[in-house]
Amino acid sequence: MNRIEIRLSGFGGQGIILAGYILGKAAALYDHKHATMTQNYGPESRGGACSAQVIVADTPVSYPHLTAPQVVVAMSQEAYTKYAGELTEGGLLIIDEDLVRLNNGAPRQRLYGIPSTRIAEEMGRKMIANIVMLGCLAALDDTVSPDALRQAVRDSVPKGTEELNLKAFERGYTHGQKLLG
Amino acid sequence: MNRIEIRLSGFGGQGIILAGYILGKAAALYDHKHATMTQNYGPESRGGACSAQVIVADTPVSYPHLTAPQVVVAMSQEAYTKYAGELTEGGLLIIDEDLVRLNNGAPRQRLYGIPSTRIAEEMGRKMIANIVMLGCLAALDDTVSPDALRQAVRDSVPKGTEELNLKAFERGYTHGQKLLG
Repeated sequence: MNRIEIRLSGFGGQGIILAGYILGKAAALYDHKHATMTQNYGPESRGGACSAQVIVADTPVSYPHLTAPQVVVAMSQEAYTKYAGELTEGGLLIIDEDLVRLNNGAPRQRLYGIPSTRIAEEMGRKMIANIVMLGCLAALDDTVSPDALRQAVRDSVPKGTEELNLKAFERGYTHGQKLLG
Repeated sequence: MNRIEIRLSGFGGQGIILAGYILGKAAALYDHKHATMTQNYGPESRGGACSAQVIVADTPVSYPHLTAPQVVVAMSQEAYTKYAGELTEGGLLIIDEDLVRLNNGAPRQRLYGIPSTRIAEEMGRKMIANIVMLGCLAALDDTVSPDALRQAVRDSVPKGTEELNLKAFERGYTHGQKLLG
């Protein structure tokens, strides 16, 4: 692996930036790689699409700009519309299947869906959908190891919510493993 | 203004990334500019220097990599040592004056110090030193307006801590205004 580009996207309030922060931290602190996390804000970002770009590499990342991501996670229709097209051919696209309706037929990508928001609601806290999604990502993509992500989740979420968030991670991880069959 | 590059730095646990997140959000959502926030992580980042790079521009930021920042904030000795040298000539350097000892004599930069951590401790919460520092930055640099920062602080800090954080911001802002004389 030289350089993997990952985009996490959705709308404001879904915890997309925190998820990106955790992903980069897991890669660097616990998998001993290098990572950058970039967030773009525009005047339009209030209530609109929200995105965190994470780059993971074996050597320091000198150019933190996404060129063609290998992984796109879309947790809203707007994010899907805006970002799915930039995936490399054969790339991995993960959507919140309740929140994203696909526009076209057979995609060029490996496409997986998870009802991350619904799972989070069932667990009593809608705002942990981002961590459910991270768990699913960990099952479907090996850029960052599941154990590194678990550790980064534990020390990045608000105090007192560690166990709930780790449960959310496992729910997503198990769902992702089932998708692989 | 075309493009202003700002580096916030310190050590892990000081809330440097949150401060960068708030700065970018303030610029974009409330000052209606464009911004990116990038965090670099390396395997060495555990307990070491921590940095958030924020770029604020009038047009979308296509290259989120810092070249020569106009503003560097250093909240630890290691961060100062690592990043102060990259400032543009005439740039603005703000340090936590209790935590950073200057290595050399007359700096080429506009240099200001604030005891941000001590102020935060006096207020009963060491972890709001980052917001004290943001207030000081708002007084010393006009890239992002104080009102935009106040709004972004209010809607970015943990629920229940809004008033404390806004007070921390004002403490830093007042201190910064006094430094200007």
